[in-house]
Amino acid sequence: MPSYTAPIKDTQFILHDVLKITEAQIPGYDELEADFTSAVLEEAGKIAGAVLHPLNVVGDTEGCRLENGVVYTPTGFKGAFDQMKEGGWPGLDMPERYGGQNMPYVMGTAVGEFFSGANQAFTMYQGLTHGAASAILAHGSDAQKDTYLPKMVSCDWTGTMNLTEPHCGTDLGMMRTKAEPQEDGTYKVSGQKIFISSGDHDMADNIIHLVLAKIPGGPEGIKGVSLFIVPKFLVNEDGSLGERNGVSVGKIEEKMGIHGNSTCVMNYDGATGFLLGTEHKGMRAMFTMMNEARLGVGMQGLAQAEAAYQNALAYAKDRLQGRDVTGVKNPDGPADPLIVHPDVRRNLMDQKSFAEGARAFILWGAHMLDKAHRASDADADGLISLLTPVIKGFLTDKGYDMTVQAQQVYGGHGYIEEWGMSQYTRDARIAMIYEGANGVQALDLVGRKLAQDGGKHVMAFFEMVKTFCKDSGDMSEDFIRDFIDPLKAASKDLQAAGMYFMQNGMKNPNHALAGSNDFMHMFGHVCLGLMWAHMAKSAQAACDAGASDAAFYETKIATGRYYMARQLPATALHLARIQSGADTVMALDAEQF
Amino acid sequence: MPSYTAPIKDTQFILHDVLKITEAQIPGYDELEADFTSAVLEEAGKIAGAVLHPLNVVGDTEGCRLENGVVYTPTGFKGAFDQMKEGGWPGLDMPERYGGQNMPYVMGTAVGEFFSGANQAFTMYQGLTHGAASAILAHGSDAQKDTYLPKMVSCDWTGTMNLTEPHCGTDLGMMRTKAEPQEDGTYKVSGQKIFISSGDHDMADNIIHLVLAKIPGGPEGIKGVSLFIVPKFLVNEDGSLGERNGVSVGKIEEKMGIHGNSTCVMNYDGATGFLLGTEHKGMRAMFTMMNEARLGVGMQGLAQAEAAYQNALAYAKDRLQGRDVTGVKNPDGPADPLIVHPDVRRNLMDQKSFAEGARAFILWGAHMLDKAHRASDADADGLISLLTPVIKGFLTDKGYDMTVQAQQVYGGHGYIEEWGMSQYTRDARIAMIYEGANGVQALDLVGRKLAQDGGKHVMAFFEMVKTFCKDSGDMSEDFIRDFIDPLKAASKDLQAAGMYFMQNGMKNPNHALAGSNDFMHMFGHVCLGLMWAHMAKSAQAACDAGASDAAFYETKIATGRYYMARQLPATALHLARIQSGADTVMALDAEQF
Repeated sequence: MPSYTAPIKDTQFILHDVLKITEAQIPGYDELEADFTSAVLEEAGKIAGAVLHPLNVVGDTEGCRLENGVVYTPTGFKGAFDQMKEGGWPGLDMPERYGGQNMPYVMGTAVGEFFSGANQAFTMYQGLTHGAASAILAHGSDAQKDTYLPKMVSCDWTGTMNLTEPHCGTDLGMMRTKAEPQEDGTYKVSGQKIFISSGDHDMADNIIHLVLAKIPGGPEGIKGVSLFIVPKFLVNEDGSLGERNGVSVGKIEEKMGIHGNSTCVMNYDGATGFLLGTEHKGMRAMFTMMNEARLGVGMQGLAQAEAAYQNALAYAKDRLQGRDVTGVKNPDGPADPLIVHPDVRRNLMDQKSFAEGARAFILWGAHMLDKAHRASDADADGLISLLTPVIKGFLTDKGYDMTVQAQQVYGGHGYIEEWGMSQYTRDARIAMIYEGANGVQALDLVGRKLAQDGGKHVMAFFEMVKTFCKDSGDMSEDFIRDFIDPLKAASKDLQAAGMYFMQNGMKNPNHALAGSNDFMHMFGHVCLGLMWAHMAKSAQAACDAGASDAAFYETKIATGRYYMARQLPATALHLARIQSGADTVMALDAEQF
Repeated sequence: MPSYTAPIKDTQFILHDVLKITEAQIPGYDELEADFTSAVLEEAGKIAGAVLHPLNVVGDTEGCRLENGVVYTPTGFKGAFDQMKEGGWPGLDMPERYGGQNMPYVMGTAVGEFFSGANQAFTMYQGLTHGAASAILAHGSDAQKDTYLPKMVSCDWTGTMNLTEPHCGTDLGMMRTKAEPQEDGTYKVSGQKIFISSGDHDMADNIIHLVLAKIPGGPEGIKGVSLFIVPKFLVNEDGSLGERNGVSVGKIEEKMGIHGNSTCVMNYDGATGFLLGTEHKGMRAMFTMMNEARLGVGMQGLAQAEAAYQNALAYAKDRLQGRDVTGVKNPDGPADPLIVHPDVRRNLMDQKSFAEGARAFILWGAHMLDKAHRASDADADGLISLLTPVIKGFLTDKGYDMTVQAQQVYGGHGYIEEWGMSQYTRDARIAMIYEGANGVQALDLVGRKLAQDGGKHVMAFFEMVKTFCKDSGDMSEDFIRDFIDPLKAASKDLQAAGMYFMQNGMKNPNHALAGSNDFMHMFGHVCLGLMWAHMAKSAQAACDAGASDAAFYETKIATGRYYMARQLPATALHLARIQSGADTVMALDAEQF
């Protein structure tokens, strides 16, 4: 059985040593003293380790079941969900007005990693609710907010996102679900939606479906899509639950992983829907959910990698196999632990340096989002908008790879379900797909975000890297060699790739798009390189200041060195691929394949 | 439901245009005229597509079950196994003396890919039998050969390999299973073996277990390990089956994939065993199986990648989603097919260029093995010995990655089991682990094979690349630029890595071992680069000779160009990692993690 321990110390290090959140001029951040965040993280860590994690394997093994139209979650899920609600966790970063605790998003993200790492399938029930509530918060009328938000913030009612239909996912303009206007101002929603995470279940009194549909007679394609609130049970004026709405579960999908989450086919048969936001502007409203959801999914990539790593590390320390070629390390035992072997180290260091770098990246991203939303910082908004596809795509691609590497440490034991390592890879696999498959993230980055506002945000990113390097000029020679020089080189590669796109993408957009996946990955590497340089600098400062826990900070610096030496050079390969252009990629006609 | 079509034309191209097998001076090769091999491949393709493939999903869904000590295979497996036997496929490359068809190993490998691609879990039953029969062929007494081989070549009896125990896999010196010598010359074998593929089942009359065990009083560790034949049913002198031996199934493992294969815990309780080969030389005998098995596993990496690719390609042509940014391609439809999108192309070209390059590599490897065994060519033997870990490690790592990429083409449909793409990744995952986890392959390559016979074989490899490049001097400028120059650059990277190991590995072996995984991968890339240059040259020759099917050959060249431009440059990244040495890898003490 795998185990899970919330990485509280690491999170605290990022919040306070690296991001220095209490010094940020953002409303609500001044309350985030280290003692306070420590208390919050400790509590979250407890529930993650003691309540959610033990149900992870249960969820995988039992899955959800549909009986006579009712969806049942795995044994123990409901009790755990009630505990989460009692602790007020679902509303941690929601407005007080609706019953939330109004903490910044950075805190929601920090604890979200713990919950996701402990049990991704379970945590999705509240994660989707959070996204749906955010959309209502941003686009709903006051009446809608008052009706739905208090119940959703507490998770008495949960939420879903309904986009995909059998014949269309990415290309939602082809959507067929329709919403017929009624005389009373409501709509009758009819159609089939698939892949609906947390689509139905037995843990909440009501489920608030946000459904994309077309109002007949509206504009063609994506411009004629509107967003509707379709509750499972209609809500009476006094807030009590009324009659059952015309929405039902067609089936629960059999999936590769996240078995504990009920991924449903949802059938809408003239269900009563309420327009959310403006007619035909449904995509804009949906994107409020999607951008938040994409950061959340990037965080899942990290969370599964961290959880898998913890177990791989424990196994590598425990399992005796072979001898250290440089000298026996465990003379009293029949063999040395796996961790003595250089290739096992290489594997573990890949995982460790990814997880810690990714954590800094995701918390930095959440911090940017707080800056944008709470301090109305347009630059921060532009930067996080640019980097959202990088966070989602890079962290989930790499996060998945890391779960595969963690599984590899176990040898044959990694392949049998008994040890739980297979579940990490099977669960992590979905994050590369949902909320926009990673190819779509790369397209969003290169085809849209890069040129947004005249390329202002990507310029700001490079400026940020440059400023950091300049400000680090007084660091030691070793630091410059190990951190600043590689960061500069990688950033230069990234700029060269952007330049290639500018010079060649005009002539033929395929020259840019054929390199989009490589660009997303090299951007991710530069971001993690920047985070590692930041972390190492902060760790060095702590050491210089005589921190009592010097070993912690020295480990941080050593782990950063690994990333800079062994991972960051990947930017050169990505650049080479990009600069080879689209010709070899597009050479064949479809029939020639 | 996925589909499978044996890639006959591609295989024929490699056998005849590239390897020119009928011109090779190897006993048995002169019979392999194109008409003949075509007929064999067509028949194998039929049984793969029509019989084995339809059972692939069945095997995954039903799995094997153990009831009252009896293992039952999934519905339809027994019938298909009988069909395979009737067709004589299990004995294709086995000696006629024991009922085989005596074809070269290259043919066994060619059809083996089809069978494995159609149904890996099923094909393993005969694959393990083949390996066990090879070990008896190489190390058995005449009496043992006469007793077991006719039945094993026909697959009336199947075989297994028993190495792993709960506490040891890679480090077999710690083995506890013991074999007590009896007065009649037999041994009583007792102990527990785990992860025994095809350990027991209902498709054969008898199962011949090859079991590693220690004879009490023998040398310590790996030097005291012997190999035993332990039949499920003892065989009477007249060849009929006698009493049930003391071996039983403890349980069937729950695995991530290959559910159709019964992976068993086997309990030996004083079972009667017969020494195979020499006392305490069991590892040598077992390696006869293992080397063959490692090539077979490398082939599985290719096979799953090919099967997944075929389906991803079909889906990319069929699924309509979005529009080609350079101009609408399907004006009469609601959207263009996925294949118009550059990033989908990039994904498909990765898969296609890998699968075709890997096929050439594996068939070239099988050809080397034939040269070694049938023509007693010591140089070929050295070369294939060097490259066995590369074939196993690189092709299974990359093969797995390709199944993940194939799954990604399907978006959300790739994650639900209904479309079958999840099974390819779950099945392919095991190949990175069994027959020596890929980290062990890398260790074998760098720690042993590289320096074998004074480094003679790796020198021969570089000489082979050099000769090819020199012999291609009269090719067109384009060919030199697209194929020869990148191949030279990659080969130079590989040599530089070898040089780094020589110069630094002496001082500290960790400097070599910390780069072993990267070295294995860069070696694999150079091999595939060489294969692609070979293939492109052969294709060009066919075009120049006015081949009727010019489109096929042009596609081959275009696919090769992609590999050279987009995949081969990875050698530089691997070299950079290797040259960063072991310091960052080994910096932390185990407690610091």
